[in-house]
Amino acid sequence: MWLAKEEHLESISIGAGILGTGGGGNPYIGQLRARQALREHGPVTVLDPEELDPDSQIVCVGGIGAPTVGIEKVRDWQAYHALRAIEEFTGKEATALISNEIGGSNSLEPLIPAAMAGLPVVDADGMGRAFPEFQMKTFFVHGVPYCPMAICDEKGNTVIIPNAISAKWAERLARAATIQMGCVACYAVAPMSARQVMETSVHHTLSLARDLGDAVKVARAGQQDPISAILKTHPGRVLFSGKVVDVERRTVGGFARGSVVIEGLDDHRGESMAIEFQNENLIARRDGQPVCTVPDLICLVETERGEPITTELLRYGFRVTVLGFPAPDLWTGPEGLAVVGPRAFGYDLDYTPLVV
Amino acid sequence: MWLAKEEHLESISIGAGILGTGGGGNPYIGQLRARQALREHGPVTVLDPEELDPDSQIVCVGGIGAPTVGIEKVRDWQAYHALRAIEEFTGKEATALISNEIGGSNSLEPLIPAAMAGLPVVDADGMGRAFPEFQMKTFFVHGVPYCPMAICDEKGNTVIIPNAISAKWAERLARAATIQMGCVACYAVAPMSARQVMETSVHHTLSLARDLGDAVKVARAGQQDPISAILKTHPGRVLFSGKVVDVERRTVGGFARGSVVIEGLDDHRGESMAIEFQNENLIARRDGQPVCTVPDLICLVETERGEPITTELLRYGFRVTVLGFPAPDLWTGPEGLAVVGPRAFGYDLDYTPLVV
Repeated sequence: MWLAKEEHLESISIGAGILGTGGGGNPYIGQLRARQALREHGPVTVLDPEELDPDSQIVCVGGIGAPTVGIEKVRDWQAYHALRAIEEFTGKEATALISNEIGGSNSLEPLIPAAMAGLPVVDADGMGRAFPEFQMKTFFVHGVPYCPMAICDEKGNTVIIPNAISAKWAERLARAATIQMGCVACYAVAPMSARQVMETSVHHTLSLARDLGDAVKVARAGQQDPISAILKTHPGRVLFSGKVVDVERRTVGGFARGSVVIEGLDDHRGESMAIEFQNENLIARRDGQPVCTVPDLICLVETERGEPITTELLRYGFRVTVLGFPAPDLWTGPEGLAVVGPRAFGYDLDYTPLVV
Repeated sequence: MWLAKEEHLESISIGAGILGTGGGGNPYIGQLRARQALREHGPVTVLDPEELDPDSQIVCVGGIGAPTVGIEKVRDWQAYHALRAIEEFTGKEATALISNEIGGSNSLEPLIPAAMAGLPVVDADGMGRAFPEFQMKTFFVHGVPYCPMAICDEKGNTVIIPNAISAKWAERLARAATIQMGCVACYAVAPMSARQVMETSVHHTLSLARDLGDAVKVARAGQQDPISAILKTHPGRVLFSGKVVDVERRTVGGFARGSVVIEGLDDHRGESMAIEFQNENLIARRDGQPVCTVPDLICLVETERGEPITTELLRYGFRVTVLGFPAPDLWTGPEGLAVVGPRAFGYDLDYTPLVV
């Protein structure tokens, strides 16, 4: 157990920016919003999954939409409204909240309704990174029901999906509502038990995000290499480093889709890397050859400062290092790969685990 | 009170085809579906609005989608599932059902869940015709809440909208869900009271549809003019008669949109009429001059047999008579025109009531 306070938010947002693999919502905006909530309502207790009372009712909350829109149309208290809507619909009061994904602003999203409702959050999430679609959660892949869910916008509209024939269908219906709501909304899913969280979540990811951010900040302060500091905190490896020379990006079907091309510098001079994304980075190819794919993490950070660069902020000229991290074990079995492997995103490729 | 039996369905479907002003869902398919339900479950009691018990809970049910799709992807028991979903959500059991619109297959839609659930239907509806969008109901214009509503598809997906900031927003969200569901779904709205139905519905429209169909059938059997028979049953007038020479039609945004051009014959030789539609006929122009607009009814029937022609079946060569009928009074005040007048559909025109 620890207390999430204002002073942790910058670190969490840096760490979640890295783990977000380009998506999960802009971490800086998430940090500002969480700061406001904690300032008004006080710090939030963060519970280890092991510390959850067996009778807990844990509600997963998150933002849904296109990060490109989310930086212009900033979220408000929709996650709180979604929490209340799902409590009312199910007749069950939440005793704790959990993040849908540790990436980007979604790492901090539960802190806002948690602060408002006086609830703790769990030090875990449903992805161990960020993914673009609702069904892409370790919870659902490992048997937790994906319905009912509630979606709220900032205007006062609410949609509830009590039944969907698959998690993918819940995603389709939720995405259609989100697009109408202006490509930015928040959702909440019916409560999980403590046992379900124990068995199907990726543990200790809020702490990991905080530790990654702390490591980057310490390295910056000491004028040390932030990349090494990141890799010391969380095992992964450098896939590439260079300069962004091309970005193609469009908001389509409720997602930010596109690709970025990086021209090699230093050790990678003369090579190039192309990364395709759908909110999150999906596949990295060096000189045309895939070197890292979903569900492994492909993370772009500024080479100099270790600042994560999300897909909606990519632009020409950034000096970046591309980091790869292995996916959490909950993703790398056949059930997981069926939902978040390269083929689930339309690539005719088998998943080859990243060797660290 | 009367009993709706299999033998009434053909007449209702002809009459509702006329009152549907081109839309409301294909009446022939509606007839076949209702026939199957009545054959399995027996006839359905039709109550006058005056006969409703003061404690009644009356649920409005209907189909939503594009008629062009509805003739290929036929509805199943979605209206029954929507009824049960809204009962479960509100905790209120329906005591009677009412049609959202008397036009097309939506006139018969409530008979299907009514037969299955053993409930009566009310001899009234929420439009006195058909309109393309959810918010376009006399109920809502005159103060009945438009939420919660439930939408179901044939696969087993359900969406509930517990709160929307306006009826138009409920339409936006419901339409987005419907498009995902394959442009064909059914919905149910939270129960109304007997008093709400008395005050805000268009009365006796199921009887009117039946009587119109009976009149057409009698005229056909006696080789008399079906057009005169229609106009004797329901006051209106002939706007035009001729041959369909052009149809432009596309399924877009979940609607069947387009226009039809009719070249005059007989009294109208040398003239032409163009009618624009969004599921339903919206505006009729003779030689470029508007002669009838929403909310008044613009109805195409085959000149020879009096058979109504819905927008999804329009094609080159049909000999048609265009009939106009005045809109129900509940539509012609300022609140009604704000929702279904020409300007509500994007036409820069004031409503001029049709003179009969």
